[in-house]
Amino acid sequence: MTPHAHQTVDISLAERSYPILIGDGLLHSAGTFAALPRGNTALVVSNTTVAPLYSARLKSALAGRYERVIELALPDGESFKHWETLNLIFDTLLAHTCDRKTVLFALGGGVVGDMTGFAAASYMRGVPFVQVPTTLLAQVDSSVGGKTGINHPLGKNMIGAFYQPQMVVCDIGLLSSLPKREVSAGLAEIIKYGPIADMDFLAWIEANMPPLVALQPDAVTHAVRRSCELKAWVVGQDERESGLRAILNFGHTFGHAIEAGLGYGEWLHGEAVGCGMVMAATLSQRLGLVDAGFVERLTRIIEAAGLPTRGPLLATADNAGRYLALMRNDKKAEAGEIRFVLIDGPGRAVMRPAPDALVREVIDACCV
Amino acid sequence: MTPHAHQTVDISLAERSYPILIGDGLLHSAGTFAALPRGNTALVVSNTTVAPLYSARLKSALAGRYERVIELALPDGESFKHWETLNLIFDTLLAHTCDRKTVLFALGGGVVGDMTGFAAASYMRGVPFVQVPTTLLAQVDSSVGGKTGINHPLGKNMIGAFYQPQMVVCDIGLLSSLPKREVSAGLAEIIKYGPIADMDFLAWIEANMPPLVALQPDAVTHAVRRSCELKAWVVGQDERESGLRAILNFGHTFGHAIEAGLGYGEWLHGEAVGCGMVMAATLSQRLGLVDAGFVERLTRIIEAAGLPTRGPLLATADNAGRYLALMRNDKKAEAGEIRFVLIDGPGRAVMRPAPDALVREVIDACCV
Repeated sequence: MTPHAHQTVDISLAERSYPILIGDGLLHSAGTFAALPRGNTALVVSNTTVAPLYSARLKSALAGRYERVIELALPDGESFKHWETLNLIFDTLLAHTCDRKTVLFALGGGVVGDMTGFAAASYMRGVPFVQVPTTLLAQVDSSVGGKTGINHPLGKNMIGAFYQPQMVVCDIGLLSSLPKREVSAGLAEIIKYGPIADMDFLAWIEANMPPLVALQPDAVTHAVRRSCELKAWVVGQDERESGLRAILNFGHTFGHAIEAGLGYGEWLHGEAVGCGMVMAATLSQRLGLVDAGFVERLTRIIEAAGLPTRGPLLATADNAGRYLALMRNDKKAEAGEIRFVLIDGPGRAVMRPAPDALVREVIDACCV
Repeated sequence: MTPHAHQTVDISLAERSYPILIGDGLLHSAGTFAALPRGNTALVVSNTTVAPLYSARLKSALAGRYERVIELALPDGESFKHWETLNLIFDTLLAHTCDRKTVLFALGGGVVGDMTGFAAASYMRGVPFVQVPTTLLAQVDSSVGGKTGINHPLGKNMIGAFYQPQMVVCDIGLLSSLPKREVSAGLAEIIKYGPIADMDFLAWIEANMPPLVALQPDAVTHAVRRSCELKAWVVGQDERESGLRAILNFGHTFGHAIEAGLGYGEWLHGEAVGCGMVMAATLSQRLGLVDAGFVERLTRIIEAAGLPTRGPLLATADNAGRYLALMRNDKKAEAGEIRFVLIDGPGRAVMRPAPDALVREVIDACCV
């Protein structure tokens, strides 16, 4: 594709609607940001890894539009996704007497996006912000849909807001600097959309895994666009996750247990979700919802993406019990009952509880 | 009025609509809370002053409805309205593994209401909450309309959310424990509604000041109800303060300068607003919008409520300059231009800037 050409996916949420722009080289062009609300000041929030690579490029694209373009690089990593780091954003905004028309730009992965979004939701009770995701995972999942937040010592993403950006800018050219492991982690969230909503897309992913892993631009653009379309369709029906939206958490209940059990950061989120999808598909099979062929096929695709498909041991004595205990702490649990996202036939997801004994069997069968 | 009888004012905000119940003895009755969403757990957030007086009463009204009623008493005072105190609420919710259906009850004045509301907005990205204001100021102003938040060292209410409660319960019987000074502070926000929106109400207040100051139940019930009706009318048209809602800040621009200049807590918020209304009315007169008789009348009413009508000196060298500098930091300022809420003829408010020289004259004329 030619540089600066782009595709658009619209998120339809009445007065909170916004476009996702997808293309190669979007950050080079001031025109990318032409539709944004006017203001005197832009604050680019990034992290110490991404800032040296891309912040100059974004700042120069914004320079003609805002009188002041301020920059803040947060420490990099999930372990910094807490109040003290969030407060660095408020300190910067107030030290520069930024008013209600200040526009925040989240330039980075999911951690930067979640924190910048929550800062935008909360500063003066809400200022506009733009997501500029620099990881594949953030482009296809975390930057879209308005979930923002920080962690608490007792739980991940426990404090936050549903707050929609003005625009999401997915410049797939930025992905070339990603470590291979993070590309695979992003592919997990792309694969996810297949079993829950679109088996044709799953077949396309299956047939195009080598170009996807190699970040071939046309393949990546299509995968990002279709993922965003499917997410837009779900979020458009259930912005605040009172029902349908929870299907986007396919693989996440087991995945969160893996992340929490190993200590956050040991496995990447996408790696835990990849393995978690195998476990959730296996549970679906044991409940008679899908056949063994479906589980095998999904497992092969996840493996081809470079992701783990066997769960780690979280305890030597009662591994399944440890998984269960961690899953009962999930945000989606209600009064201690775990609500699994299961595949109710290929391309269709359902939320339901499952008997502990069966879940234990699945964990025993799926772990190393 | 008979105990437990109550009046209702509805806040109309589509799916975020809710009722304000106003009456004497509402906290004695489990029926007050009958319309609330079901959940396993209620958390009553209060402070160390209010908890010993009223939390047992609220907890017993809730006991039949929730399996668990947890309690948390925050330290009392505006100086604790910051992140560390807010985090005590999150700690309590997570230590008790509270899920998304947990209902928070804010039992206290504006500080407790603002912090509990922001905690409810942010915990798991939003759980239901109920305002149970125990001060006159909170009953007629801060508990209604969904403004929540905390202070930052560099500014008051700089971090927060627009987040609507499920219900506001104004039990005017709770006001009997209020110090006289806090009754006067509440009357400032009641008086406010007259000049900006309803001169008949101002005349009623003028005629009923002695029973209001004495907290006579019928007078207080009428004043609370009419104030809530007027606030409901404004908020219903402009929930997120993009325009009209700002008229509710009549007296607040000068008032905030007084609070910030003296140090928060020196004057009560309502005291600063009372005096700020005199200054804003005087500025309106100097701009030719109202006559001197209007300013004199409003000043007499504010005085009769037991409120200060002369501004304090905030600096010995250039007092007016100090006021101006503080006002330029207001959340409503845009690019450093102060936007005053002025009276554009009795019963009608308007937002506009004013020449510095004229503002200086007003400050000089209105200060001690």
